[in-house]
Amino acid sequence: MRQFVVVGHDAPTTPDFALDDLAGAAGRLDVLCRCVNAAFFLSHAIREDVRTHLVLADAFTVTFEGSDLRRLNPDERSTAALIRTALEHREDAIGHQPVESTPGVSIRRRGFEATLDALDGTLIHLNENGTPVVDCDPPDDPIFVLSDHHDFTAEETNVLADRADLRVRLGPKALHADHAITVAHNFLDTGGFRSY
Amino acid sequence: MRQFVVVGHDAPTTPDFALDDLAGAAGRLDVLCRCVNAAFFLSHAIREDVRTHLVLADAFTVTFEGSDLRRLNPDERSTAALIRTALEHREDAIGHQPVESTPGVSIRRRGFEATLDALDGTLIHLNENGTPVVDCDPPDDPIFVLSDHHDFTAEETNVLADRADLRVRLGPKALHADHAITVAHNFLDTGGFRSY
Repeated sequence: MRQFVVVGHDAPTTPDFALDDLAGAAGRLDVLCRCVNAAFFLSHAIREDVRTHLVLADAFTVTFEGSDLRRLNPDERSTAALIRTALEHREDAIGHQPVESTPGVSIRRRGFEATLDALDGTLIHLNENGTPVVDCDPPDDPIFVLSDHHDFTAEETNVLADRADLRVRLGPKALHADHAITVAHNFLDTGGFRSY
Repeated sequence: MRQFVVVGHDAPTTPDFALDDLAGAAGRLDVLCRCVNAAFFLSHAIREDVRTHLVLADAFTVTFEGSDLRRLNPDERSTAALIRTALEHREDAIGHQPVESTPGVSIRRRGFEATLDALDGTLIHLNENGTPVVDCDPPDDPIFVLSDHHDFTAEETNVLADRADLRVRLGPKALHADHAITVAHNFLDTGGFRSY
């Protein structure tokens, strides 16, 4: 199982946003949609062994489960519509219980720290000062933690520093979160670049 | 200089498409927009040493020039708007002369074969039967040729077979075109995975 946690600092927490303005009034939800695309799509297939968690403004977490997804399309707009539908069910998310809004998509009332604490695997902080990925062996059950167009806050950085098993950099250039997901998948697909 | 050529088989050749239906009536223009995103964006920067050519239904080619781009944003919708503006200038594209529609974006009346013939560099056909990328040295002035959600046609495959300098595969899984661009960039950024 590969997991991705993506923090959306400005992401909406209510469903009253327009699909026509994802990069504007919807708090750069376009970034999170591209992360979902990168996490799940292969050519003519879905990666079923992937789970992706979008943390919306530290209030809700929307989880996409690869093995259960039925209505995911690659474009930003349709993915944003799935997130909007999840947010329409936010009032039903009581305590930390998830509510499934569409097949494979569920919402929980849970912020960043609680989301990390609930996951089992090798927690990986992608960071430009980390170990070059080519010097790493592919970890078991990796959980990659990424931020949207903003850097992690000081508080999030502290939470990550406490919990991360590895700090890894994917290359010499800082990438968008969705591009980082694509490179991480390629690293794992090839069994680590050294052994491919 | 890194170049990418992306073939949009169903892409529009007139500007009368809706930005609200890129994945539908606009002939999967969302795919081409994501390719532009992958080709140019770094975190908080544009890759200036990149040129990307979108071949629209073998009739027009819209070229994005990294060093001149001024209004490119990461989301699909705003990139589609730049392509639409380019198509509004299609009648001014006479012969093979380009017309600049917005800073760094130009349109030419030119199909797939003529576009390839006009480029200088190492032409690379990304193909699942190619040489694993980790066994390749980074080429000079690479030109990666990719297809949208359809495979290359038999005719395009023949054109490529005649002209390609290398056939390369990026990993064991077939990727979307935009993800392939991201992996290719990472390969080049790291100077070839072996030497990083």
